[in-house]
Amino acid sequence: MLEPRIESVKWDGERCLLLDQTRLPREETYLPYTSYRDVADAITRLVVRGAPAIGVAGAYASVLAVKESARHSPFDWNALEGALSSITSARPTAVNLKWAVDQIRAEIEAFRHLAPAELIRKVEIKACELHKADCEANREMARIGSAFLPAGLAVMTYCNTGDLATGGIGTAFGVLRAGHVMGKVPHVFACETRPVLQGMRLTAWELTKNEIPFTLICDNMAATILAQGKVGSIIVGADRIAANGDVANKVGTYSLAILAKHFGVPFFVAAPCSTFDLSLASGKEIPIEERAPEEIFAALGTNRPTRDFKVANPSFDVTPASLIRAIFCEKGAIEAPSAESVRAVFSSTSPLPRP
Amino acid sequence: MLEPRIESVKWDGERCLLLDQTRLPREETYLPYTSYRDVADAITRLVVRGAPAIGVAGAYASVLAVKESARHSPFDWNALEGALSSITSARPTAVNLKWAVDQIRAEIEAFRHLAPAELIRKVEIKACELHKADCEANREMARIGSAFLPAGLAVMTYCNTGDLATGGIGTAFGVLRAGHVMGKVPHVFACETRPVLQGMRLTAWELTKNEIPFTLICDNMAATILAQGKVGSIIVGADRIAANGDVANKVGTYSLAILAKHFGVPFFVAAPCSTFDLSLASGKEIPIEERAPEEIFAALGTNRPTRDFKVANPSFDVTPASLIRAIFCEKGAIEAPSAESVRAVFSSTSPLPRP
Repeated sequence: MLEPRIESVKWDGERCLLLDQTRLPREETYLPYTSYRDVADAITRLVVRGAPAIGVAGAYASVLAVKESARHSPFDWNALEGALSSITSARPTAVNLKWAVDQIRAEIEAFRHLAPAELIRKVEIKACELHKADCEANREMARIGSAFLPAGLAVMTYCNTGDLATGGIGTAFGVLRAGHVMGKVPHVFACETRPVLQGMRLTAWELTKNEIPFTLICDNMAATILAQGKVGSIIVGADRIAANGDVANKVGTYSLAILAKHFGVPFFVAAPCSTFDLSLASGKEIPIEERAPEEIFAALGTNRPTRDFKVANPSFDVTPASLIRAIFCEKGAIEAPSAESVRAVFSSTSPLPRP
Repeated sequence: MLEPRIESVKWDGERCLLLDQTRLPREETYLPYTSYRDVADAITRLVVRGAPAIGVAGAYASVLAVKESARHSPFDWNALEGALSSITSARPTAVNLKWAVDQIRAEIEAFRHLAPAELIRKVEIKACELHKADCEANREMARIGSAFLPAGLAVMTYCNTGDLATGGIGTAFGVLRAGHVMGKVPHVFACETRPVLQGMRLTAWELTKNEIPFTLICDNMAATILAQGKVGSIIVGADRIAANGDVANKVGTYSLAILAKHFGVPFFVAAPCSTFDLSLASGKEIPIEERAPEEIFAALGTNRPTRDFKVANPSFDVTPASLIRAIFCEKGAIEAPSAESVRAVFSSTSPLPRP
């Protein structure tokens, strides 16, 4: 059974510990947090990133928020609701954050009659359960998804979707790691992922740790590599998936999906059920975070030269379901995703047909 | 009539002066060269880049080579031939370099019976003529190409193709600049162009100088921008065009051409006749320069973290003619480029139908 090699988020009973991903790969430092505000700020600043990982961090931040409200007598319910809202809004696109906070909120609702110390215990247990469930969902996706990877051909991946981005072995990364262990994936092409270079800094680091042979490329080299015929599939993670199967993920994903179609290479997405937002009919409704233009220059170790021109910095884009061969979640593979096939997974208690 | 705003290559009668593009936009410094070897090295190091500009620099380097051979008595013909070969091989993909050196070589052949001082004068005049002809070709392309730009919609461009990349107002840049002056192009989207960031550093600088409103984007944001429907055309330059209309240009061009097809946006190429290599039947035969992996990290102000993995750094890719709506050269517009339509331009003495 594949185990994570590093934990991006830890809980020591008192503090939420985050591996500072802004300093990777230069430095492996855990930052300890005892305040929900500081965790929310860390999420905004990308100390922790990756939709499932920020879900887990958001759950622990919510526990810290309950503890902070419990310091008041009587328990400060208004402050708690404000805290949960501010955690949720630390980043707008990845729905796992809202989902995780909502799970904790439901636990709070269910146990609000308990004494504060008991309530804290309940939400702490719940947060740890969510963390563990994410880890288990990763393994299940890896098992399901790896069966779809064409044997003997390289996999191309984007951004970072491994241990660092999740509570376990990763979403897309878990799938390709399982494929590598099975002997199906001889090589990986990792895109550097501008502007924040999660591919170059984080995925390269994780591939090295896992001893998976790979080639790092600039994002704009994907067409050249795909044209060479060595890549059998592209697999990415997701930040939010609408009810019709449209997928919001790191900006650049949409380009890759179009290239995959052009070259006849299957395009796969791996994401846990917590990434689905069935309240949105299509990807058009997904809010796309626009980050500061300075981020684009900061990654180059330089400053914005002038304010005479505009700089676009959408963090995500939306890939239409029609470009996606299959979405892997812990319930199974959703092939040719559509409103019907997505609904079938979520309304059915019986598992999907699995490979 | 549109004039260049800055000269990337100058000749002062004794020295070749190159604007050091590796230091732009921080610093505008001309470096003086009196040795062909140093110019060849400057071409390799990207002090001057852009296919037509390195053609012009190669012509002046050849003049310096003639002068160096003339210092020997008798004139050192063997050294000259070696020098011309080494200038030609400073960069392998852009055929303008070879073309310009071949033009000077033909001049040398025609006048090798003259006294060295006379020969030097002849090749110097020829190099200046090539420079001026490139400038005139730019204006002609701008006139021809701008007629094709859809009015009222933005243009997306890639890499740098302006004054800095040519002997005049640019290839693709000249076309969009003319379109802007005509009131047809309200806005430009400039892709940053990893790894060396010619878009962010050079095109942004030229657009600012020309007061053309623009938005800088990371290369991987192109699909998101194109999906918004604000871009009416994509226009790029070229480093070598095969006899069938396949175009080698800065890596990432191929991706953009595929996206253009997907979104139904016309994809244009602007390049002078000196960029065509009719000796190659198709783009498959174009040599693609693979540059040092370190270049990918150096642009980020960092070093390659480890040698445990491969890094791909092809400087160019080849866009098939089938993805190109039209190629603009100084002889006219080659619509739906193919072996036939390219041959028609080069074999005909009568001009192509022009818009």
